Formats: sequence, structure tokens, C-alpha cells
Amino acid sequence: MPPVRRLGILTGGGDAPGLNAVIRAVVKSTCRRGIECVGIQDGFEGLLEPDRSRVLQPRDVTGILRLGGTILGTVNRGADPRRLVATSDGPKEYGVRVAEMAGRLGLDALVVVGGDGTLAIAYHLCTLGVPIVGVPKTIDNDIVGTESSFGFNSAVEYATDAIDRLHATAEAHHRILVVEVMGRYAGWIALYAGLAGGADAILIPEIPFDPHIVAERLLARERRGARFSVVVVAEGACPKGGSPAVTDPGGRGRLERLGGMGAEVCRLLAAETGKETRSVVLGHLQRGGQPTSTDRVLATRFGSYAVELAVRGRFGTMVAYDPPAIVARPLGEIVGKVRLVPVDSDLIQAAKAIGVTFGD
Amino acid sequence: MPPVRRLGILTGGGDAPGLNAVIRAVVKSTCRRGIECVGIQDGFEGLLEPDRSRVLQPRDVTGILRLGGTILGTVNRGADPRRLVATSDGPKEYGVRVAEMAGRLGLDALVVVGGDGTLAIAYHLCTLGVPIVGVPKTIDNDIVGTESSFGFNSAVEYATDAIDRLHATAEAHHRILVVEVMGRYAGWIALYAGLAGGADAILIPEIPFDPHIVAERLLARERRGARFSVVVVAEGACPKGGSPAVTDPGGRGRLERLGGMGAEVCRLLAAETGKETRSVVLGHLQRGGQPTSTDRVLATRFGSYAVELAVRGRFGTMVAYDPPAIVARPLGEIVGKVRLVPVDSDLIQAAKAIGVTFGD
Amino acid sequence: MPPVRRLGILTGGGDAPGLNAVIRAVVKSTCRRGIECVGIQDGFEGLLEPDRSRVLQPRDVTGILRLGGTILGTVNRGADPRRLVATSDGPKEYGVRVAEMAGRLGLDALVVVGGDGTLAIAYHLCTLGVPIVGVPKTIDNDIVGTESSFGFNSAVEYATDAIDRLHATAEAHHRILVVEVMGRYAGWIALYAGLAGGADAILIPEIPFDPHIVAERLLARERRGARFSVVVVAEGACPKGGSPAVTDPGGRGRLERLGGMGAEVCRLLAAETGKETRSVVLGHLQRGGQPTSTDRVLATRFGSYAVELAVRGRFGTMVAYDPPAIVARPLGEIVGKVRLVPVDSDLIQAAKAIGVTFGD
Amino acid sequence: MPPVRRLGILTGGGDAPGLNAVIRAVVKSTCRRGIECVGIQDGFEGLLEPDRSRVLQPRDVTGILRLGGTILGTVNRGADPRRLVATSDGPKEYGVRVAEMAGRLGLDALVVVGGDGTLAIAYHLCTLGVPIVGVPKTIDNDIVGTESSFGFNSAVEYATDAIDRLHATAEAHHRILVVEVMGRYAGWIALYAGLAGGADAILIPEIPFDPHIVAERLLARERRGARFSVVVVAEGACPKGGSPAVTDPGGRGRLERLGGMGAEVCRLLAAETGKETRSVVLGHLQRGGQPTSTDRVLATRFGSYAVELAVRGRFGTMVAYDPPAIVARPLGEIVGKVRLVPVDSDLIQAAKAIGVTFGD
Repeated sequence: MPPVRRLGILTGGGDAPGLNAVIRAVVKSTCRRGIECVGIQDGFEGLLEPDRSRVLQPRDVTGILRLGGTILGTVNRGADPRRLVATSDGPKEYGVRVAEMAGRLGLDALVVVGGDGTLAIAYHLCTLGVPIVGVPKTIDNDIVGTESSFGFNSAVEYATDAIDRLHATAEAHHRILVVEVMGRYAGWIALYAGLAGGADAILIPEIPFDPHIVAERLLARERRGARFSVVVVAEGACPKGGSPAVTDPGGRGRLERLGGMGAEVCRLLAAETGKETRSVVLGHLQRGGQPTSTDRVLATRFGSYAVELAVRGRFGTMVAYDPPAIVARPLGEIVGKVRLVPVDSDLIQAAKAIGVTFGD
Repeated sequence: MPPVRRLGILTGGGDAPGLNAVIRAVVKSTCRRGIECVGIQDGFEGLLEPDRSRVLQPRDVTGILRLGGTILGTVNRGADPRRLVATSDGPKEYGVRVAEMAGRLGLDALVVVGGDGTLAIAYHLCTLGVPIVGVPKTIDNDIVGTESSFGFNSAVEYATDAIDRLHATAEAHHRILVVEVMGRYAGWIALYAGLAGGADAILIPEIPFDPHIVAERLLARERRGARFSVVVVAEGACPKGGSPAVTDPGGRGRLERLGGMGAEVCRLLAAETGKETRSVVLGHLQRGGQPTSTDRVLATRFGSYAVELAVRGRFGTMVAYDPPAIVARPLGEIVGKVRLVPVDSDLIQAAKAIGVTFGD
Repeated sequence: MPPVRRLGILTGGGDAPGLNAVIRAVVKSTCRRGIECVGIQDGFEGLLEPDRSRVLQPRDVTGILRLGGTILGTVNRGADPRRLVATSDGPKEYGVRVAEMAGRLGLDALVVVGGDGTLAIAYHLCTLGVPIVGVPKTIDNDIVGTESSFGFNSAVEYATDAIDRLHATAEAHHRILVVEVMGRYAGWIALYAGLAGGADAILIPEIPFDPHIVAERLLARERRGARFSVVVVAEGACPKGGSPAVTDPGGRGRLERLGGMGAEVCRLLAAETGKETRSVVLGHLQRGGQPTSTDRVLATRFGSYAVELAVRGRFGTMVAYDPPAIVARPLGEIVGKVRLVPVDSDLIQAAKAIGVTFGD
Repeated sequence: MPPVRRLGILTGGGDAPGLNAVIRAVVKSTCRRGIECVGIQDGFEGLLEPDRSRVLQPRDVTGILRLGGTILGTVNRGADPRRLVATSDGPKEYGVRVAEMAGRLGLDALVVVGGDGTLAIAYHLCTLGVPIVGVPKTIDNDIVGTESSFGFNSAVEYATDAIDRLHATAEAHHRILVVEVMGRYAGWIALYAGLAGGADAILIPEIPFDPHIVAERLLARERRGARFSVVVVAEGACPKGGSPAVTDPGGRGRLERLGGMGAEVCRLLAAETGKETRSVVLGHLQRGGQPTSTDRVLATRFGSYAVELAVRGRFGTMVAYDPPAIVARPLGEIVGKVRLVPVDSDLIQAAKAIGVTFGD
């Protein structure tokens, strides 16, 4: 295979803590190998316009390891890229244009950092011959093939701190506090932050919940002397009988409604328990902020290994975490899938063993 | 005056970081003076039932200095205590019962920690002969007579961290992000956190804003090359022509509507600028959490000085911060008033000098 | 096997963030199964005196999930328990006494949370018939058989934050800053915190370093325009030609000397580079503090699974993390061993790929 | 007076959280007034070489508000600048050269941000006709004329967090933990962080301590059931009979010895109490790190007001905090003085009232 002399990098989809750590690792690794690194602004969109690229030197990435966001910018217009790719005409034409531009920029390789949507586009472009290595980015931790990705740990840490705060206020006021965290299809953040924050109930998309069961558990808690409760709800959680998020054909429109699942659970529990109940939506606060050490290390390993894969010519793959190793997975194997919390995992069992209810 | 042998303490109103630090200081100070300290659960309500009080020893307050919330609990039923006190019959009767109970508990002094509502009740009780020293608690920093109170600095620190986080995500996505912080009548939190977080616009109740002016400033920013903006909004901010919160006779109902001022500003700016705009409400997250060192020191000084005032028989007063000293203020002077941000203060001037707009 | 009706728990060795989370999980799990949980104060020492035990109820563990330290206390007299156990007479007698006391307390099972020393005693007691399940606790992450343990992630997060702080000051003053972190035998903390903090050199016990090589790399950095450097040193790091910590027969005395490895590297680099160099020892600061969400979840899973193993009668085992699962390992397999950083691991390779030197 | 068209800014002495916030405010304020702002690298040293200055635009200060350190760099060669200025020949010549260079750079005004040493040089330069406005920077909070300066609050917050951490470990191990914080001449950090962290003893330069009295207090604590203690020591604290730092003629040599006052107190208390005692030196960790919101606001107000003073031609002054206002003080009034903790202040009294000993 031909040597890589010029390698591009872009970041797509929602921002996640650790994106800058990936960029830094890619720039530093290419620099040490004598490869020129080109930073492309604003995701795939920036690839279509020549003046949105520039060569990145090590000095350009000084101090960014610990910063949230992405120095390359990203674009997130609200369109579902998976649908874009699935449609017959548009994406093909679009892909061809991107492939052309990648060639015109003289890129021998392209590192694409992004979530499932961005990686689906990347896979599509690979089939058109663009030499891509993917790096998974998912705060929700729902990309298949990798045990976790950067951003997740930072989001869990943030959500845990938020739950700690709400504990204090719930206890002072003898209230039920409902915290809505991210997780449209998968409940990883809710599960981890709920366990770490000492939640009494954790409601996730994988386990449809019965509000009566949740309420009954909280009231039983009160009968034993506890005067407050904290409930963690994934935005994609769903009451029993409701249609689960992943199979709903309605797509984004439905998700808007789910944006209020925390508020809905709040109303349901207030009605069932008769107690003062408040809800808080963490929303965008989970995305920003400095990456934790865990995410910085993982992002650095991902970035470094992505360059390694590019140099070896292993295009069409994605770096992945198979603890304790970093490995490569074919992009084709992960596209269109979602990594859910296994309902019988020992995480769920541990939570139930200490008295957490999932409403089932 | 008779010596104080038994001193009660209660916390009322919404919780604030630093309440436990006050309780700890009161318990430790009384212990060193040979005074018995009685902790009353759940604010004034707990004073009416004998089994909701217990003697507090230094060991009961070990480790609470750094905890949010209040080990004594509080009650916040949503009723406006100022109105309760203002009404003719109820409060008098209620006051008499409380005064009786304080006597039955053998309390020679009562330290009441709370906000304007709780302090209004305290003042009312003082007129009925209950020997009270007040400690001001206000996250919003809007109690008159004291330069600041505990809880405020912690809330500002939290809000600043939130703005830092949103900066990262606003920059990555080229968005306008609107953050709603606490402040029904006064914009102190918005002003301090906005300055500390580097907000581009700060909207506070004291300065009615014109959405066109705000939008124009953000667009001018964009023309100079900035691709994102952060706007901090106090929950009680008000567009020009709207009725300001403090003079509105409607009371709580109106505040419910104002709960969405962040969302309203978000809509207004999206319409005016045509840019992607998102809003986040910090809400209850500002209340909980560990107190900052600033709040722990202030709360400790307040608690210690409240005991000093009680021992000196200076009832009917409130401890206050007149930097760098802690002083006493008559409760009667502060009841029913609100401490606003002076529109011509050098804080506002400093903000304007560095380019922050207030929409005026 | 006989059912477990009464289960004891003790914590031994140095404290680590997450100990309280283990205790909470054990108390909550036993409570749900109808098992009485007995908390033993101050490690094995507390087992020898009946008045240092008490039944723990769920309310005793309210709010401790997020607290550092251990509500059960621990004892760390500076004696190496491994040697104690290895000696012929003393430990046997001691073991017999402990076994007797466990019987007298009516314990059907004992959960022992501790590091390699404590687990060695636990293994010894198991051979005498005490029904023990071990829970590994190691900030250094050097216990074999488990991919990681609680406390490690919190220590890395803390050390990373410290490195971030020192970066700012190193940059402002154009200095070399040397940070000494924990790690007597294994360099896990130095490696992770060094990578997460963006260190330029990482010195660990597993890779003896040549000061000339380290100095040369820092000077090369300066020639490329960087005016500061940060070096992370594990306390057990060793210059080439020095005797590595693990094989040194001198034991603790030598470790005292190693306590100053940060200062020694500081002197070496100042002499070699002629630049202003400062060192900081993180020391005890790495132990205290709140556990991260990662450590809280791991500790909770460990505690919950330890009860599960006890109920199943699987004594003589230790819970362990084999990602993503929690598993059981025979205590006999881990005693007397140390888990080192594999010199050819992809972590080391990733670090080298982005330009970090290990001085080799 | 002539209008200011070009204004220089430099930062001198040790770095402090908030320096970048001052720089940002100066750049933004000058920009809005149509004044060109020139950033001078590495303090006064950078003023002597033309290629170490550059015009700063608003975009150069984007995102620095929350960063520790200083983008302008600083020089801290270990020489005491006060002595430099006091000597007859050198400084005069040096001052003349600096004044010449300021003229050659076309600066109509120079904002000098620094501690007592840097401000002494600034005052000296003012007498030579250089149009300077000073901005006080002191982590130790010991500059006279200003109630506080930026950096102090961040250092206190950091030290408080460190004390929190050590509490957990002291409690788990039943130890005395001694924390040495900054404060050569004044004990402000020790006093605030000690109060905020719940220290049992606070030793500051202003109050020479008797080790017997401290030890006796800690033992009394133990007799009442407490099994651990935390002692906070300012680096310039001094046992009774020792020569206090401020009057010691030995200068820096003595300070090196004092660098070990934490260790000395540790030894003294171990000997007196017979308990396990450990010490930790926070050192450089107090300097770096992000500024707190309090310091960001104060630094922003300082920077903005410094430009205001320069525009008004009020050279030879220093901005200062006279709560709640920002005011101007003549530089001549503050040179050569140190702001100590008043021994009879209500801060000290509040600390004593809750049982803190100062060893007197």
C-alpha cells in the first residue's frame, strides 16, 4: 500500500468531552511520523470547501487536551444523517463530491471522529473509495463494537455530581427529585450515574417501567423513615405499554416529546405518591466541560491508534475499546446498530441487590 | 438581662449551601459557652411539635461543614410567608402558638436562619416577645442590610461552571446558548456568573431589556468573527414594556410564568438572529452542592456572631456582612424590602466597558 | 452449606475513595436478603475486641456513598502485614485468636476489604477456617487478578487535576515541574495521570530511566519553541542502574528514601538542563476526597457481589473486575504478587507515539 | 492631558489565578475605546527587548478568562525585586532603560499587574516618568490598600478542598494531619482555609504559637472522643520565641527554612502528643488552576478600572477593592508595607469562639 503523507481529521455530530484530546493525539502522532495533518472545520460540510482546512502543527494543539468542545467545530443541523445516507439519490451524489474533495486536498487518509450518524456517512464514503478510519464518539455509550467511548465517563461524572447536589436539596425539603439525563435509545448514563449518585429508582429505555411500582417503592422507603427520594430517568425511558424508542417509526418528532420524559415521570410520581416532586433536565450541560482523566486517556489512545491504522492502510475500520486493549472493528459491522444495556447484566443485578428499582 | 442557658436553632425556606456551617458554628459556640443547643426540625413547623426538637452536641455536627442542605430540614410548602404574616388573623394566632412553644421548650433564645419570608415571621414573633436573632440566608443575595449572605457565592460558582460548559458546546456548534439562573427580583447571580463566565449578554430584572438590542449585539459579534454567544438570564428578567417582577401584584402565579424566561429569551433571539439557539435552566442545581470556602467562612462567622448577639440579649436583630466586619441590623429595617443591583454600580459599568450588553 | 445469617465487614490498610461505597452496598445487600450486617471498627484489630463491633442498618450508611475515608476506620501502623503473616509463630497465634473472635461474634461470613497486605492476612485466616470473601482495595492498582479496583480512578483524576494546575504555573514561569505521584511498585497512576495531564515525561518503576535521555527530550522540546515541561514520577521510579523497588531486600527503609524520588528527579533535571525546576509531592492528597463515579460504581458492584459470594459459600475468594463483568478469584492466586504495567502494552505505545518519553 | 492611544500591559512575579482575566478585561476595554493594546511578554524583562511585544486583539483573549497562568508569561528569577529597587545604582539605570523602552514602544500608558515587588518597581518607574497604573496581584492577600486581590480566593478554595481530602484520611487512620499553606508574612490563606476546612488549629505568622498549647488542645479533643485532628500552618508561622518572619533580617535564606514549617510542626506535635502525625505541603498547587468566579469578577473589574484610570491620566495609582467599590490608591502608599491579619479581628474571634486554637 502507498505511504500516508497527508492525513485529514474532522469531527462530526454533537460535541463530546475528549474530542480535542483525539485531535491532539492525531496531530502529535502524525508529526512524529513525518505525516502532515490537515484539520477540516465543521465536519463533512467543511470538506466541501477548500478554505475550511488548514495544516495543524503540535503548537496548535497545546493546552487543548483538557478543553471541552472541539477546535475543529462540528455541524449538527438536526437532520438525521442515517436517513440521509439511506436515501437513494442524495447521499450518493454527496459522497462522490466528498470523495472528490478528499482527493483534491491530497489526503491519503481521513480520520473521522463522530457518532453513529457520522460513522454511517464514513462507511458510505469508504464504499466509494475514501480511505477512512473512524473514531467512535458517543456520550450515550450506545455504539456497538466498543465497550465505551470518550465523553461517556465525563457525562456520567457530571450527572453524578448533579445527583449529589439534588440529594442535598431533596433531603432538606423532603421531596422526590427527578433528574433527566441523556440516553435516547440506551440507558448507560442513567444506570451509571444513578448507581454512582445513589438513586432510588433508575428508568431506562431497555426496561419499560410501571409508575405504580416506582411510586410504591418510594412510599415503602418513606415508611422505613426516609423522607426523600431521587429518581434518575433516561430521556428515552418509556412507561410500560408505551412504544419503546428504538422501534418507534416516528423518528425525531417522537424524540422531541421524549425530551420531557423527566417532567412526565415527575407528574406521574406526584400523582401516585402525593409528595412534593420536582424535576431537573441536565441537557446540554452533560456535553460541555472538561473531559475526565478516563476520557482523556481513552481519547488519546483512540487518536494514536487511528493514525496507526491509517499508516497500516486498514481503512474502513473504527478504533474500539476492548478492555484493556484498543482494537480495530470493521465500520460495516457497527452501522445502524445500537448497543443497549443487557437487561440481565450484573450491573442491573447489583443495582437491584442494593434496592434500586427499575420499575419492572 | 437573664443569661442564656438554652438556645434553639431552626432553618426555614429553601435550602442554601452553608446552612450546615451555620448550625455547626452555633452548636460549637454554645457548647464552649456552656449553653445547651436545641435543634428544631423543619423550620417553624417543627417548633409546634415537641418531638421534633433534640439537643445537639458537637459530635452531631462533625463533618457537616462541607455538606449542602440542612441537617435540621426545612419546609417550603409553596406558601408565601410574607403574605401569611401580613394577613390579620392567622399569623397572630400562629405567632402566639409559636411563642408559647418556645417558652415550653425552655428556650432563652432562638436563632432563626432563613430568607426574607422566614425573617419576616421572625420579626413578627419578636414583636410577640420571642427572643430571636436572625441569620440571613439568600442565594439570590437580595436581603437588604447585608452585603452578601452564604449560598450566593456557591450558586455563582456553580452557575459559572455551567456557563463554562455551555461555552464549549456553543463554540463547537456555532450556537447561541441561553442560561437561566436564579434571581426573581434581583439579578446578582446573573450579573456575577455572567461576568465570571464571560457572557455576551446579561439580562436582569433591574434593567428591562430590548430583544432587538440584544440580538443586534450578538450579530455584530458574529460579523467580527465570533461564531457563538452565551446569554445569561435571571429568572425575573423582563423585556422592555413588560411589568417588572417586583411591582407585579399577581405574586406567585406570575413567577411561574417567569420560570420560563430563559426559554422566552431563547425564542426571541432565535427569531431575531436566525441562528440556532438553545436554552438551559439551572434550577435546583444551584441550591444543592457543597458550599464554597467563601460561604463556609461567612456562614461560620454568622453562626458564631448570632450566639454572641443572643448572649448579649440583642434580640430582634439580624447578623449581617458589612465588609470586612460582621455586624447587627434591626430585623425591622429589612422586612419587606429587596436589595437590587444598583443600575449605575461599577459592576455594571465594568461589564459594559468590556462589551457586555444588558439589552438597554 | 449453612445459610449466612450474620455477616461481618471490616476495612484494612490505607484508606481509599470508595471504601464507604463498598460498606454501603454490603449493608444494603444484606438487609434486602434478611442477613444481619456487623461493622467491625479499625480492621482486624477491631475484631479482637467485642466492643468495637456494631450492627449496621441502612440508615447508618445514608449519604456515605460519596464520602472519602471509611466509616469503619482502619489501622495502618506502618508494619508490613505480609511479613507478619510470613513469620512462623506470631501470625498463627494471631490468626487463631481472630478465628475464635469471628466465631464468638457469631459471624457466618466476613467481608474483608483491603490491599495486598490485608488480603494476605485474609488468605491466612481462610486456611484456618474463617469464612472470608475479599474485596481488593488498591489506589496503586497493583493487585493481580483484577483489571482495576476502586480508589485508582479517583487518585488518577486528582493527580490529573494537579498536573493541569502545574501546567499553568510551569508555562507562566518557563519551568520544568516534577510531580511525584503514588506507585511504589507499579506505575499505573503515573502512566494514566501523565497521559491525561499531558506530561512530557513519565517515569515508572517498570522502566528504569536514564536522566540524560529525559533531559535531552525536554531540551529538544524547548528547541522547538516550548518553554516549559511537566514530568510525572511514580514514587517507586528508579534511575537506570539503581535497584528496582520490587526486588530490593531492604523493604520499608528503602521506600522512605524513595519518598523523595520526585525531589531527586528534580535535582537531576535541573543539573542536566540548567533550567528552573520545581517538584511537588501529591502524597496523602491522593487518598482522601470523594470517589469518582467510576469508583463508586465499581465499589458498589464489588460490595454487592461479595455478599452474593458469601451467600453461595464461596469463601477464600476475592471479587475482581474482568471488564465488563465482576468475577471471583481464589485469594491464594493473588497473594504475594504485584500487577505491573506491561512494558509493551498499547498504553505505553500510545504514550510514545504522541511523544512522551519514559527515559528509556 | 494627552489622550491614550496605545496602552501596554505586563504581568510580573509569581503567577496567580485571574491574571488572564485582567489581561482580557484590559484588551476588551481598550478595544471598545479605540485604544491599541500591546501585550509585553515576561514582565519588565520583556519590556527591554522590542520583539517581546505584540498588539493584542479581542480574539487573542478568547477563552482565557477561565485559564490559570498568564498568556503574557512572567519572570520570577528568585531575586527579591524590592532589594533591587532599594539598591542605589542598578535600579536607577534599569529604570531609565525601561522608561526609554516604554517611550520607544510608543506607549502612552502601561498597566502593570504584579505583587509587592513588581509594584515597587512600578512605583520607582513612575517617579522616572513612566505613566503606570498598577493592578495588585497577591495570592497571600498581603498587599495594603486593597481588601483583597484576585488569586486569593482561588488559593483558599483549593486549600479548603485539600483540607477536606485530608480530613477523610485523618479520620480513617486516627491521625493528626498538618497542612502547610502559603503565607510568608500574613496568615490570610491559613485563616480562611482553616475556617472553611474545619481545622482544629490554625498557625499564622501574626500569632506566634506555643506547641504545648496546640498539643494540649488536640489531646483534649481526643479525650472528648475525636480521634483525629487537622492543623493548618502558614509557611511563615513561627513558634513563640522564634523570630517572626517580617522582622527577620536574614531575608530569603530564612524563608527557605520556613518552607519546612509544616514539617516542623508535624515533628513538634508528634513528639508532644505521641500520635501518628503526617504533613502535606500544598506549595505550587495553590498557584495554578482555574480562577474561581470571585477572582474572575474581581480581576475583570480591576482590569476594566485600570484602563479607566489610564484614560483619566491617573498614573502612579493602583486599582484596589474597597468593598463593594473599586477605587484608586496611590502606589506610594502601599510600597514596602505588608497587610497582616488583625489579631483582634472578628475573624479570629469567630474562629476562637467555635474552638479553633491559634496556639496562643
